[in-house]
Amino acid sequence: MDEGSPSSLACRAMSLLHPDRLFPPDPTTRKIARALYDTVADAPIVSPHGHTDPRWWGEDPAFTDAAELFVMPDHYVTRMLFSQGMSFAQLGIGEEAEGDRRAIWRRFAEGYHLFRGTPSRLWIDHALSEVFGLSERLSPANADAQFDAIADALARPEFRPRALYDRFGIDVIATTDDALSDLRHHDAVQRSDWTGRVVPTYRSDAVTDPETPRFRNNVMRLGEITGCDTTRWQGYLDAHRVRRTFFREMGATATDHGHPTARTLDLGTAEAEALFKRVLRPPVSPEDAEAFRAQMLTEFARMSTEDGLVMQLHAGAVRNHHHGVFHTVGKDRGFDIPQPTGWTHALRPLLNAVGMDPRLTLILFTLDEATYARELAPLAGAYPCLRLGPPWWFHDSPEGMRRFREMATETAGFENTAGFNDDTRALCSIPARHDVARRCDAAFLAGLVTTHRLDEEEAFEIMPRLAHGLAREAYRL
Amino acid sequence: MDEGSPSSLACRAMSLLHPDRLFPPDPTTRKIARALYDTVADAPIVSPHGHTDPRWWGEDPAFTDAAELFVMPDHYVTRMLFSQGMSFAQLGIGEEAEGDRRAIWRRFAEGYHLFRGTPSRLWIDHALSEVFGLSERLSPANADAQFDAIADALARPEFRPRALYDRFGIDVIATTDDALSDLRHHDAVQRSDWTGRVVPTYRSDAVTDPETPRFRNNVMRLGEITGCDTTRWQGYLDAHRVRRTFFREMGATATDHGHPTARTLDLGTAEAEALFKRVLRPPVSPEDAEAFRAQMLTEFARMSTEDGLVMQLHAGAVRNHHHGVFHTVGKDRGFDIPQPTGWTHALRPLLNAVGMDPRLTLILFTLDEATYARELAPLAGAYPCLRLGPPWWFHDSPEGMRRFREMATETAGFENTAGFNDDTRALCSIPARHDVARRCDAAFLAGLVTTHRLDEEEAFEIMPRLAHGLAREAYRL
Amino acid sequence: MDEGSPSSLACRAMSLLHPDRLFPPDPTTRKIARALYDTVADAPIVSPHGHTDPRWWGEDPAFTDAAELFVMPDHYVTRMLFSQGMSFAQLGIGEEAEGDRRAIWRRFAEGYHLFRGTPSRLWIDHALSEVFGLSERLSPANADAQFDAIADALARPEFRPRALYDRFGIDVIATTDDALSDLRHHDAVQRSDWTGRVVPTYRSDAVTDPETPRFRNNVMRLGEITGCDTTRWQGYLDAHRVRRTFFREMGATATDHGHPTARTLDLGTAEAEALFKRVLRPPVSPEDAEAFRAQMLTEFARMSTEDGLVMQLHAGAVRNHHHGVFHTVGKDRGFDIPQPTGWTHALRPLLNAVGMDPRLTLILFTLDEATYARELAPLAGAYPCLRLGPPWWFHDSPEGMRRFREMATETAGFENTAGFNDDTRALCSIPARHDVARRCDAAFLAGLVTTHRLDEEEAFEIMPRLAHGLAREAYRL
Repeated sequence: MDEGSPSSLACRAMSLLHPDRLFPPDPTTRKIARALYDTVADAPIVSPHGHTDPRWWGEDPAFTDAAELFVMPDHYVTRMLFSQGMSFAQLGIGEEAEGDRRAIWRRFAEGYHLFRGTPSRLWIDHALSEVFGLSERLSPANADAQFDAIADALARPEFRPRALYDRFGIDVIATTDDALSDLRHHDAVQRSDWTGRVVPTYRSDAVTDPETPRFRNNVMRLGEITGCDTTRWQGYLDAHRVRRTFFREMGATATDHGHPTARTLDLGTAEAEALFKRVLRPPVSPEDAEAFRAQMLTEFARMSTEDGLVMQLHAGAVRNHHHGVFHTVGKDRGFDIPQPTGWTHALRPLLNAVGMDPRLTLILFTLDEATYARELAPLAGAYPCLRLGPPWWFHDSPEGMRRFREMATETAGFENTAGFNDDTRALCSIPARHDVARRCDAAFLAGLVTTHRLDEEEAFEIMPRLAHGLAREAYRL
Repeated sequence: MDEGSPSSLACRAMSLLHPDRLFPPDPTTRKIARALYDTVADAPIVSPHGHTDPRWWGEDPAFTDAAELFVMPDHYVTRMLFSQGMSFAQLGIGEEAEGDRRAIWRRFAEGYHLFRGTPSRLWIDHALSEVFGLSERLSPANADAQFDAIADALARPEFRPRALYDRFGIDVIATTDDALSDLRHHDAVQRSDWTGRVVPTYRSDAVTDPETPRFRNNVMRLGEITGCDTTRWQGYLDAHRVRRTFFREMGATATDHGHPTARTLDLGTAEAEALFKRVLRPPVSPEDAEAFRAQMLTEFARMSTEDGLVMQLHAGAVRNHHHGVFHTVGKDRGFDIPQPTGWTHALRPLLNAVGMDPRLTLILFTLDEATYARELAPLAGAYPCLRLGPPWWFHDSPEGMRRFREMATETAGFENTAGFNDDTRALCSIPARHDVARRCDAAFLAGLVTTHRLDEEEAFEIMPRLAHGLAREAYRL
Repeated sequence: MDEGSPSSLACRAMSLLHPDRLFPPDPTTRKIARALYDTVADAPIVSPHGHTDPRWWGEDPAFTDAAELFVMPDHYVTRMLFSQGMSFAQLGIGEEAEGDRRAIWRRFAEGYHLFRGTPSRLWIDHALSEVFGLSERLSPANADAQFDAIADALARPEFRPRALYDRFGIDVIATTDDALSDLRHHDAVQRSDWTGRVVPTYRSDAVTDPETPRFRNNVMRLGEITGCDTTRWQGYLDAHRVRRTFFREMGATATDHGHPTARTLDLGTAEAEALFKRVLRPPVSPEDAEAFRAQMLTEFARMSTEDGLVMQLHAGAVRNHHHGVFHTVGKDRGFDIPQPTGWTHALRPLLNAVGMDPRLTLILFTLDEATYARELAPLAGAYPCLRLGPPWWFHDSPEGMRRFREMATETAGFENTAGFNDDTRALCSIPARHDVARRCDAAFLAGLVTTHRLDEEEAFEIMPRLAHGLAREAYRL
């Protein structure tokens, strides 16, 4: 390796981020990867799926401190620290939570070495460096200075959410919104003179999963909001249609469904109606709950053929694995654990019912990588309605992305995938995550070029498709 | 990389195929891979399993056009184009099918970019370049010219099947033949003065899978052909023996069994007899159908110990996933999707019954890569009768082959694998597929050498075993 | 590659072992890997889990010959030779076993090429070279000479087990001991003036698995030894406590549990008591046997919170797959085959019962690599009690280790893993196995450095953690 080249290790001292990070070591391949990446490094960010707080966009509040921004809301961070002996309270979460944000940040700095080799480390290094201009990696020695520097920055208007959106080069960002939401923050964005594009996503789980707490109340509330009789099956379906129309009017182009499995069903009306009646009357058996979720996926696919909303299915997480953690600090704290998730049999009823309708797009996300090559790529390489979502959650990482491309591409190609989405609740990680994905895709394409499976000019055509083109198309943005 | 070396990217302009394609980027490893590959590049092709049409060999007809040769019969091709919105009719398949072959070819050219990163692209580039001498990649701009060039070639005698067999350096090729087949085309080959060796394979599914359409009729027909009473269990087994003898006389060395799972059973005679009676009388329960297929695998293994036919098991495809596609365009159109396929428990009855018989060879094929290291390599690394077939179908690809070697070799070694087979219905892809396999195996061996897990001279010993020696031995060819 | 550098292939002629074996081919990465490895190449061996014979340490007997040392007790070796047609008798095992050890060794030499590409080959090359000073790879031509050279060496005192322990630089080694063992050999070690540290491990299977032969007798014997009434549930649990105390007094820091699945249960006392009664009275249903093993895992976890013994769970092997092999040559002959093994649901009862107790450490081992990224890393990256054991058995290999690090690190990091353990019955393979692991970990870390996911100085900090630090901590040694 040329010591004077940008890929030299000597460069690292100048910045927290090496310009050639995540590119393959082989010099020939690295050079191609770098060239590919350069064409999309500054391309606009299309963020079609994520969990940023709509209030940030609607009210544009200032963040207060580094702990609030980087530690407390990030389940990747809190679970890792917890796994090595820190308590949630020490991290500012739950009862008797630490109130001193600086103390929380110091604990994070003490544990920052735990993230070596993880994507969180890449994202946080990137955010500290690129968003806050810090040139040293977080450590106990510089924790206080970084806390102060970040606090100073956050007090300035250019670190408010809307300013960050503009600075990050975001073209459009989707939030994920409860079916019952009034979307007031989306409304505020639209009424404002800010030009950012923030679109809602219709997330149905609270009113379709009988195992959700307060499911029945949610369904009744759905009836009140829509004026539909949600005690009856047809009224309940109509209520979804009313809400979807509202979401579409507010800019939504997609729905999202987070299910423990990918099971679908296509029951006759009478059977579906009877099932609906049973799930409204507790106790609901696990079989009925599963069947109802399964039936609703097919119903939503049908509605998508009517109204054009793109459908997303995130399947395979066993939520709240430890009951005590759930009861003391609530959901989304790192105790959602994947389970094996089949697709071939699970999707068959839905695909036989509406899988050939040209109006349907269904984007699939899995936590079970064994299904990439075995089930998902064969399905997406056959059914016109299917697209494969990017590596999700635990697999949103360099190795995860590599495995996805290696296992999905040979059967599904590139055009049956749906580009990248950051899926994040951590605002400052958005550019970092897209950057990691673009680098990993550049590395994968470069490997195809140096092994002569792809011409160099073809790789340059594919690169922007993976960086934003496919996402924009798949999500109809 | 030396710009003047054969691995230089500059060479590509001279040909559609780079001489170093599929070799690792690291120069040291690439050099070894190239040297290994060179020793087998022109070695004879042993093709012990595939789906070429026996009529080609028996009647030696001329192909008419590029669409008939490359598009219409190739489910890898049609499913990908379909997945991106083309209809089967537009591809010349099913009702109201496009009759204009040139139009089909143009559509294929329009969609050819979809195959980037897939093995189909490697195979078709290879065939266009090496079989038809075309030096440009197919594109909408050259589609007409290539269609014409191919049509011209196909009119010449040296593009008839037997001439291609000779030109491709095929030593022996196996077809896959229905148990009820009269093998008339094999007979024609044997009566001809052509020296090619085309052997049939006894594929039993039509008379062993109770879920096959017209199963009962097929079993009755089996009785007529053989003169055995196939309404009775012993007569039915005898009929198989008669047919196997006929196939052996016609050159067969192997049987093949395509099952949704690898389940085997070893029932007592009375129980098996009762099961046979039930599956002959519709409706047949899914459990009985599965049990009957399972029992038949053990029966076939027993017959193999008697007559020496090598047994192949291809397990794990859910056939005809979309009912509408099946009803309109039939089977083998790309709508067969894999399912998880266990081997450890599934094979136990068969292996306990006949797994130690030295006369048995059972070659296993899976669509579930998770079983390579977990189940298949441990089984093949213990039972003398077992050999691992090459990566199958969706995994017959560079990444699929790499994963197979990486996951199977450390437990099963090389000698418990059965070499390559092309498994193709696409005649012109045969040399391409063997070439890809030889290159990928050379790359794998070279990696072992540069990481000093294998001496260079050992790699040179192993290379021809993988290219043809192991296949010849495993299939007793 | 510089022909004069230590990574040159030319060096190989000087030794059976290349100094750069298992390092990545890319020169930059290789250089870093070599530097990392050099820092731990001679570090002490911490061996917290394995199957060396306690008698070796207690009585320090001489081994007699190469066949006894390398062939007969090593199921990796015997199964591979068996899979290619040698009989167990020819390998000196079972009835009518070959008595001529030299003949056995010759057969091994004839089949040694079968191990190409397997870890056994790496281990045996290493032992022949480093333990016995042989510079040629074993072959039929040198088999006799090597047999003689090894026999000569074994007659010398420096080849007795304790001398090898010292020479190998072992700091501490754990054996695996039946719960009913009197640990006499451990006692002998402690009474001797030898300074080696050999600690027992409490392996409970014989008295907790109702499907073990003589289970009931074993439980009664447990009662006799401990003076507890093991016909009653509480007495049975107390008997375990008594034995665990004895093992702890003899130096044990850990327990080990080898189960077909990872299933756990947390039954109420009355229910557990009734289950215990049922499993003591044959016939025991498979469901009851599984439930009892599951319940005992949770009981053992509770006991670990009381007495501080680290708990190991090795789950997923289907033992004695072929009944005939089991009946003629017994267990541990290579006919244990993995099955799919889920962890997310299986561990939930145990983890909900005691998973948050800071006194518990539970180390998990799997034979199902599909669970590394899907289940094990997410679990270990959340629960403070969990650590991931190293790649086990079929996966204790270069490719297996690479996949483990690639699939586990991004979610669990390094500190939630438990370092390496050799898990071996083959004394001379101990340094070889640790050497392979250290090289593979160095290679993995070096890859993170050259792709700029880790700073070089961080990699140097992590290296000794992986080589011995994490094992020492996780096992409380």
